[in-house]
Amino acid sequence: MYNLLENGGVCSPKGFTASGICAGIKASGNADMALLKSEKAARCFAVFTTNKVKAAPVLYDKAALEHAHFATAVVVNSGNANACTGEQGYKDAERMATLTEEALNLTPKSVLVCSTGVIGHLMPMDKIEAGIPKLVEKLHADASEEFGRAILTTDLALKSHAVEIHTEKGVVTIGGACKGSGDFFAEFRADIADSFNAITVDGDTSTNDTCILLANGMSGLRYEDLSLSEQGEFRAALMLIMQSLAKDIVRDGEGATKLIELRIEKAESHEEALRMARFIGTSNLAKCAMFGEDPNWGRILSSAGSSGCNMVAEHTDLFFGDVKVLEGGRPLPLDEAQTAALHAVVRQREYKVTLVLNIGQASASAFTCDLSYGYVKINAEYTT
Amino acid sequence: MYNLLENGGVCSPKGFTASGICAGIKASGNADMALLKSEKAARCFAVFTTNKVKAAPVLYDKAALEHAHFATAVVVNSGNANACTGEQGYKDAERMATLTEEALNLTPKSVLVCSTGVIGHLMPMDKIEAGIPKLVEKLHADASEEFGRAILTTDLALKSHAVEIHTEKGVVTIGGACKGSGDFFAEFRADIADSFNAITVDGDTSTNDTCILLANGMSGLRYEDLSLSEQGEFRAALMLIMQSLAKDIVRDGEGATKLIELRIEKAESHEEALRMARFIGTSNLAKCAMFGEDPNWGRILSSAGSSGCNMVAEHTDLFFGDVKVLEGGRPLPLDEAQTAALHAVVRQREYKVTLVLNIGQASASAFTCDLSYGYVKINAEYTT
Repeated sequence: MYNLLENGGVCSPKGFTASGICAGIKASGNADMALLKSEKAARCFAVFTTNKVKAAPVLYDKAALEHAHFATAVVVNSGNANACTGEQGYKDAERMATLTEEALNLTPKSVLVCSTGVIGHLMPMDKIEAGIPKLVEKLHADASEEFGRAILTTDLALKSHAVEIHTEKGVVTIGGACKGSGDFFAEFRADIADSFNAITVDGDTSTNDTCILLANGMSGLRYEDLSLSEQGEFRAALMLIMQSLAKDIVRDGEGATKLIELRIEKAESHEEALRMARFIGTSNLAKCAMFGEDPNWGRILSSAGSSGCNMVAEHTDLFFGDVKVLEGGRPLPLDEAQTAALHAVVRQREYKVTLVLNIGQASASAFTCDLSYGYVKINAEYTT
Repeated sequence: MYNLLENGGVCSPKGFTASGICAGIKASGNADMALLKSEKAARCFAVFTTNKVKAAPVLYDKAALEHAHFATAVVVNSGNANACTGEQGYKDAERMATLTEEALNLTPKSVLVCSTGVIGHLMPMDKIEAGIPKLVEKLHADASEEFGRAILTTDLALKSHAVEIHTEKGVVTIGGACKGSGDFFAEFRADIADSFNAITVDGDTSTNDTCILLANGMSGLRYEDLSLSEQGEFRAALMLIMQSLAKDIVRDGEGATKLIELRIEKAESHEEALRMARFIGTSNLAKCAMFGEDPNWGRILSSAGSSGCNMVAEHTDLFFGDVKVLEGGRPLPLDEAQTAALHAVVRQREYKVTLVLNIGQASASAFTCDLSYGYVKINAEYTT
């Protein structure tokens, strides 16, 4: 049994403290540095952007985790991505880690670094250096929201969740916060595919995407001591946290007015279903129709057909919410009541589109937002 | 030697006549049927959409060309795509061909059919049947523009070009018109990659994309009789026509205010260079920056890095027009004059962005437009 906690976040699991401050990196004066610390060194699983242009903190963390899979703290700044900053950028990322290790009295390579913000500017190291002692001083156990807010950039809403899993031997808690999206860690890589990698705002992969999971073991329980069904629940709970965070990212997508689940059913494989769902989720034509509250099945079907995944047009059925609009690849004639129901679906803030391929047994979902004037405005006017 | 003809188009080569009429398929009352006819049966090369959801005329033409690679005429309608129309749709496409063959007194399978417009509606065959005799009656040799205008849908501008190649033995003329984009024919497949397949408005592949090349031999010259250098000129001239048409499509992209050439140089292979250029051309972040007249090198570089193509961030240089903004992956400090020059480049209606990878000898270009409020407006408000 597991359940989401109200106002949960990175500090919900035992032994984690955090803090967030305004270090003056952002011109807006919003919070722009954050620290998460575990009482004990935590087993660390991390996955980073696949972009060939990797930011300095990504390169630093990858190197730090190459030999030891443990970390005790993560220091984060927003407002500057420390990307395209060359050797000096790498030295700066390293210095952020070292200063945090010294301030926390930790061994070398026990602190990871994350940066997010504008590209191509050297880090304002004077502000970072002044910020770290303040972060350490302010560490406290009720700082989930403080941490979550300090890592945001152009996004607006706090993305923070935690879940409790009740097992026979006791309680395990998972908490998380995010901005942006990424990949993930060995055993649970499949879960990442269906959460952080199953969402798309515009399909772009940044220079800084990072996903770090810390397990400090302070619940006193070990994964391998759980029963098989409890292990299943743990994975489901972790998936719930990751999907909740991932959906928050989409809801808060630039200019987004809608969150749409694209569900592909009866596909040949899970991988193909997920790829097709993601592909439709990046179709500008489909996303503009969602913004226009137009139940445009033609753009969904056409995008599915050009995804490169297997399908037979004549076998496919399509639903908006519960309203079937397409059967065997042909539009159904809808009566007045059905047409009204269809338009009610696409006027909702969140709804589901289901494409049933009828060529196999696999299914998957991706989550996307609409493409609005707001998206263009934000991205045409926001300068790196 | 070859040169573009003024006001050239499908009727420029010897032996071709055409016509365009208002058959009443479009509610707007604009021209919506067109016919192109060759005096002699023409060698025909055609390539069709790779979308798994193929419109009826695409399926019909593919079947018709399977055994004979000749065609004498092409009948086109706009306003209805005849896609997702099942068996009846196929019969309707076949009937369009047959009626045209009968009216022109041609043998079966000598007429190809193209449709473009809304998806999921059966063809208004009464209008088609009434239109065909009118098209035949109106066929004339100065109808390039008439033909070009009757095939448009949401696009606004005529896309029509012709080129004359002067060889030792005489003159060969190539003419073309288009809306939308496609793939192409065996020997010149590489040319298609660098023209119709090198452009992107939003990366979507339609159910109806079709590219047909007719060669009626009435210049009296055969390709294999040309000298090697003349064959090279022929290919260059064909490329010029196809690139000119392809660029017209981008210029007339929904809501487009700019045409940008994305040039990748010193890449490992032509294929990788082209793929990277196309990938950047579909990045919404990069395209919004182009609309905002923001020389946002970060989004270009980041998109290149996530294209899946080989590159080394530290080796790359980037230019907007002639202004170098990035060297070895790091932004260059620009003085006041250079900054002014940079902003002048991105304020132009057409400009070039060059990314030099410095890891090989290959290069390629793709052409894209910006992503504007107009794109969202057109695609949020236009209902299939």
